[in-house]
Amino acid sequence: MINHNEIDCWELVESPFRVEHAKAWEGMFTLGSGYLHVRGSLEEHLSDAPQDRTYTRMPANVTCETFADTKSKWGTYVPGVFSRHPLLGNQMVNLPWFLGMVPVVDGERLDVEACRIADYRRVLNLRDATLTRTLQWTTKTGIRVNVTFERFVSAARLGLCVQRLRIRCDQPARLRLEAGLDADVRTNGFDHFVNVQFSYDRYLSCEVRTDAGDRIVMATAIGCDVPGSSELCSNLRQEDRRASIVTECLLPAGVEAVFTKRTIVATSRDRDDRDPSRELAEISDQPWQELLAEHTAIWHERWAGCDVIVEGDAAAQQAVRASLFHLLRAHVPGDDRVAIDAKGYAGEAYWGRYFWDTEMFLLPFFLYTDPDRARTLVDFRVQSLPGAQANAKRYGYRGARYAWESDSAGVECCPNWQYGDHEVHVTADVVYGLVHYAQATGDDAYLKGPAARVLVETARYWMERMDTRPGDGHPSILGVMGPDEYTPISNNNSFTNAMVAEALRAAARFGRYGGATETECQAFLAAADALPIPRSADGTLVLQCEEFERLAEPCFERIWPDRSRTLGAQVSQERLYRIKALKQADVLMLMMLFPHRFTQEEIRRAWDYYLPYTTHDSSLSAGVHAIVAARLGLHHEAWAFWEKAKGIDLDVEHGGAAEGIHIANAAAVWQILVFGFAGMLTAMQSDTLTLSPRLPQAWTRLAFPLVWKGCRLELELTRTTCRLTNRGSVPLGACVSGKTATIRPAQTEEWGLAQ
Amino acid sequence: MINHNEIDCWELVESPFRVEHAKAWEGMFTLGSGYLHVRGSLEEHLSDAPQDRTYTRMPANVTCETFADTKSKWGTYVPGVFSRHPLLGNQMVNLPWFLGMVPVVDGERLDVEACRIADYRRVLNLRDATLTRTLQWTTKTGIRVNVTFERFVSAARLGLCVQRLRIRCDQPARLRLEAGLDADVRTNGFDHFVNVQFSYDRYLSCEVRTDAGDRIVMATAIGCDVPGSSELCSNLRQEDRRASIVTECLLPAGVEAVFTKRTIVATSRDRDDRDPSRELAEISDQPWQELLAEHTAIWHERWAGCDVIVEGDAAAQQAVRASLFHLLRAHVPGDDRVAIDAKGYAGEAYWGRYFWDTEMFLLPFFLYTDPDRARTLVDFRVQSLPGAQANAKRYGYRGARYAWESDSAGVECCPNWQYGDHEVHVTADVVYGLVHYAQATGDDAYLKGPAARVLVETARYWMERMDTRPGDGHPSILGVMGPDEYTPISNNNSFTNAMVAEALRAAARFGRYGGATETECQAFLAAADALPIPRSADGTLVLQCEEFERLAEPCFERIWPDRSRTLGAQVSQERLYRIKALKQADVLMLMMLFPHRFTQEEIRRAWDYYLPYTTHDSSLSAGVHAIVAARLGLHHEAWAFWEKAKGIDLDVEHGGAAEGIHIANAAAVWQILVFGFAGMLTAMQSDTLTLSPRLPQAWTRLAFPLVWKGCRLELELTRTTCRLTNRGSVPLGACVSGKTATIRPAQTEEWGLAQ
Repeated sequence: MINHNEIDCWELVESPFRVEHAKAWEGMFTLGSGYLHVRGSLEEHLSDAPQDRTYTRMPANVTCETFADTKSKWGTYVPGVFSRHPLLGNQMVNLPWFLGMVPVVDGERLDVEACRIADYRRVLNLRDATLTRTLQWTTKTGIRVNVTFERFVSAARLGLCVQRLRIRCDQPARLRLEAGLDADVRTNGFDHFVNVQFSYDRYLSCEVRTDAGDRIVMATAIGCDVPGSSELCSNLRQEDRRASIVTECLLPAGVEAVFTKRTIVATSRDRDDRDPSRELAEISDQPWQELLAEHTAIWHERWAGCDVIVEGDAAAQQAVRASLFHLLRAHVPGDDRVAIDAKGYAGEAYWGRYFWDTEMFLLPFFLYTDPDRARTLVDFRVQSLPGAQANAKRYGYRGARYAWESDSAGVECCPNWQYGDHEVHVTADVVYGLVHYAQATGDDAYLKGPAARVLVETARYWMERMDTRPGDGHPSILGVMGPDEYTPISNNNSFTNAMVAEALRAAARFGRYGGATETECQAFLAAADALPIPRSADGTLVLQCEEFERLAEPCFERIWPDRSRTLGAQVSQERLYRIKALKQADVLMLMMLFPHRFTQEEIRRAWDYYLPYTTHDSSLSAGVHAIVAARLGLHHEAWAFWEKAKGIDLDVEHGGAAEGIHIANAAAVWQILVFGFAGMLTAMQSDTLTLSPRLPQAWTRLAFPLVWKGCRLELELTRTTCRLTNRGSVPLGACVSGKTATIRPAQTEEWGLAQ
Repeated sequence: MINHNEIDCWELVESPFRVEHAKAWEGMFTLGSGYLHVRGSLEEHLSDAPQDRTYTRMPANVTCETFADTKSKWGTYVPGVFSRHPLLGNQMVNLPWFLGMVPVVDGERLDVEACRIADYRRVLNLRDATLTRTLQWTTKTGIRVNVTFERFVSAARLGLCVQRLRIRCDQPARLRLEAGLDADVRTNGFDHFVNVQFSYDRYLSCEVRTDAGDRIVMATAIGCDVPGSSELCSNLRQEDRRASIVTECLLPAGVEAVFTKRTIVATSRDRDDRDPSRELAEISDQPWQELLAEHTAIWHERWAGCDVIVEGDAAAQQAVRASLFHLLRAHVPGDDRVAIDAKGYAGEAYWGRYFWDTEMFLLPFFLYTDPDRARTLVDFRVQSLPGAQANAKRYGYRGARYAWESDSAGVECCPNWQYGDHEVHVTADVVYGLVHYAQATGDDAYLKGPAARVLVETARYWMERMDTRPGDGHPSILGVMGPDEYTPISNNNSFTNAMVAEALRAAARFGRYGGATETECQAFLAAADALPIPRSADGTLVLQCEEFERLAEPCFERIWPDRSRTLGAQVSQERLYRIKALKQADVLMLMMLFPHRFTQEEIRRAWDYYLPYTTHDSSLSAGVHAIVAARLGLHHEAWAFWEKAKGIDLDVEHGGAAEGIHIANAAAVWQILVFGFAGMLTAMQSDTLTLSPRLPQAWTRLAFPLVWKGCRLELELTRTTCRLTNRGSVPLGACVSGKTATIRPAQTEEWGLAQ
């Protein structure tokens, strides 16, 4: 076993409370179990932050968008519950909010913004996946109140969230607690609930029906334990779309009142017919500690399979764990009807949709730590093939065309045509993911089985999507947007062409299992071989697209005065679209994925050429740059991009996770460690486990577990050694810094590293 | 005086009624006075065509859009009354409908779709600008009813519409007439009225306030004359947003009942403070015939200044007059706060906004027939300079940037970024219009006076909008959409560059009157001279834009099966944007405007190259092609495009004017006759009046009046002769088919033409 490093890098701490950072922490403190996610909103909520405001969120470039200005945004999500927004397309629905627990002491309502608060401290325990808040509140009447809120979304029981509130006053006080369910919420300003009904039997229950016909049922049980209290009473209060249980008592001085709230969520999309009230009843006798223990046990097991140890840099260690925490949380085990949305089920930006992030950013982490979870992600694309086929048809093509912004059915939902119409590389990226799954697990069966039709159908789309221009003598892919979304409609984007060629080769190889004829397969292969990667006239520079050199030179000094904000937010889109300004890595991402197809000189040339033009306005950019820099031996640059990537969600000053977790970047953080600093080649890049470690100066040790073609192993890296321990049952060949060895089961092999 | 040809080509006739053509005739039969326009809806309306339906019209490419499906769409417009649609931007507001007159005989309501109707005939008299409908209606009870509706929108009195209904039954019958005002209308599905109030004093009056704060007041007077009737009574009926006067009587057999309805419209945008009820009272003694006579007198005078005589082709004659009728109607004399919107104030498509159509299509007709009216159109751009400056600022530039879709304040309202952001040529087109005005009137004063700041401010915008790419040695205009809207973002579009160069030259010449320094003017000129017109490698082909040859070849046979509908409606926009498919003339339009800069061979080469790629999906395409074909001596092609252009609004089978008049095409119809068949060069193309007549085979005579640099003249063309009569006070030089002569005042000069 890897020894977990015990300097407390398992905690993320908010202290003191600052209202301007509230929304960022709310996103960062999202808890979840795959099935159910809830943003880290304060139990008692903030004043002046209404959640029932209806407004029109317009289709816009999210990078440049100003989101509805509010101190707090509730978010309660069950992946897969989508509904149609009239302007924006299908979006994940924000469900009723169940966290509410509002203590009132001597008539004063807790409000951390307005009340006198000391020692405010909120801690996300990453290992346990629990959120705890402690504070001391002095009421206007002079009572000192110690308050502790705790919560976790159970990893052990579907749809269960458990909360606890402990409260103690230094004087006898009248205490009231309001705890309930609030269905007066909106999704991106839109009301998706056509029916809201409350009932109270043994538990308070809320049933909503969405305009898409989904049924959501929540039941909540409030418990209280107030030793020595008198006049304890509880009442139900309901107003339109809100209902709560109001408990009142006289709390003796120094006595701790303990309130618990257990909520269970079920939806009509569940595979089993569930009854939240019955499920609540089943756990009614189980104490907090038991429910917590079964929850943390699962989390500890998860961590054992993926935790990355960084020694010598506590901030890095903490940031890595924050990233892995959200990756583990956002994944929905065993449900192939959903993947992981762009905001990791922690916000409304990007409408809860699935992007290329799934394959190109998220998948590797799961592939090399927990292939079963990876399988769910690739299965998502297989099951949503009918949606992709419908997209192709709508655009006038045969075959299948995966959506730039996919709902759970695979349907294109992107409300901005420049992305939805033109960012077609996603269809090839999906296939790349399927092939990567097969390569990493070392098993072709997936491509001969479930994935074969995806290979064939997407290849058929590409065959119609390609054009051969007179005089060219080769096919081209015209009118596309590559990963760099600031070049909207370009020809022969190198990244796109390379990915399509890769996809066509896979289709040529496995097409017969998916219904392709031999002739088709030959045509797939011929097209793959003929698709060009454009280069500069002297051949030394891989061009992002044919016309890249004909774009205008940007004068960043003049048009981008404030570097703390994106360029995209400071110039008109019209200008962005005609200058050499990259939103993110494009050619460099191509080179990261296919390192052997380019010489180090070519990669360095591309780095030198594109970097000055790259704005990194996309959170997907830093990770790719860090990996490429590490491989190029550009240690200073690799470190700088690493620092940027690791801070994206934690930088509450600049919004951080306010609109949700940048989940692709969270996965890129893992990729930087593994593919960058440990220098591992993926199974798409090498059949043998291959590492070229380059530990950053500041670190003394880097260690993590891996799964390589079914074999579990552990890697431990210092500045001078690389140790691999085989935890599997068969010998494993590995190549570290050019030296190959075979590691027998249960053995550790050590490589010395040049300083 | 030109002898008006009297074969009745002054009438447009709908007969019989066919519901599938109702909306097309409704648009074509729009009447108006510049100030007030009302679509040709039936007084009694149709069943199942509600006008109060709220729906979301989404931003979309209008060419491909399916409009709300309804048999009839009311439209009542006062140019300049705009309000903000939340998704679509500022739009012209559809005002309350005042035409309603519903006869009910023995309890049966007239409904031309449901009732037994014979001899239905509706006639738009173009010369008189009156609309008359006659029909015979047999009620279910067997009464034969003769009905005649008449109406005109007075050219003599601001905001007055006069209607008359004559009705006669072959048996005694109970007759009821409901006539009122209906404010329960929407504009593109949106309700802009925040307040609707009815009052009845001497007249029924309706006041609405729009959400932009405009106030609209309508007053209506119902008169009736029923000789020998008994039990005549009138009652007011009001329901929410509708009110009407209900008149009932017993009508003796064979007696004609005559009802009149006079409505006066005023708005808070009027220059004078008006009171419709008082204005109604002032004309209460004036009989129908007097009001009609003062109206027709004005129209006859208008026609005398612009009517085009086509002999030998009644259909052509009729189509020409239909076009000129709507041009005359849609122009708002003396009000420089508005121009002529894209649908000629006859429909909601394009939201009542002003496009480049104003300068490039509409202006020439007014310039060469009525320069005072042309002045209003160019003044519109001068007065809306602040809006254009605000647009430039919003896009991050100095100077002024005219809107692709302008409201009356000049503000960019286009809800589709590809047009609004990139179709920048409009800013140069505006300057072209100003210079054209000065050239055609022979007076530079306009450019030294009111227009000078427009020249300078737009030139300042261009100086920042241009880029000089390394190695090019010349400035470029990158990332634009030219007139061909199917090539969305291209570099150095030839049309755009040529227009911008022209505008910069004007700014260089007159800039000092508009505040430009000498250094600025020199820079304007240098840039104008350096802007490239891209050509093919062998130099023979003018390229639409640098990358045109790198677009994909379209396979129209496969992707465009139904040629009766636009290509744009049959393929995805994504495909359109990567193939050589032109929506409309682009290089050819450039060559039409600057014929002397290209050899006949170059023009022919461009014709041969681009024509197979041109879809003519835009109604602006046929006119340009007809003129270029005529100049190239391609008589067959010129004729075919003429036939297409003249039929665009009249083709009720294919929708025709259903969503409004294609007013730019209406003006192109005039341009084909004058610039194409008469072969006149504009004052931008020649300082001397120059003609190269090419009368179509089918015609025996073409004659029209002209104004050339302040001199009125008449042109008469046969297959063998061209006669010019000078109706001015100074001698006029002219060149016809290469032969020059001077025509003295009141003299006619005749040129023989080669057969």
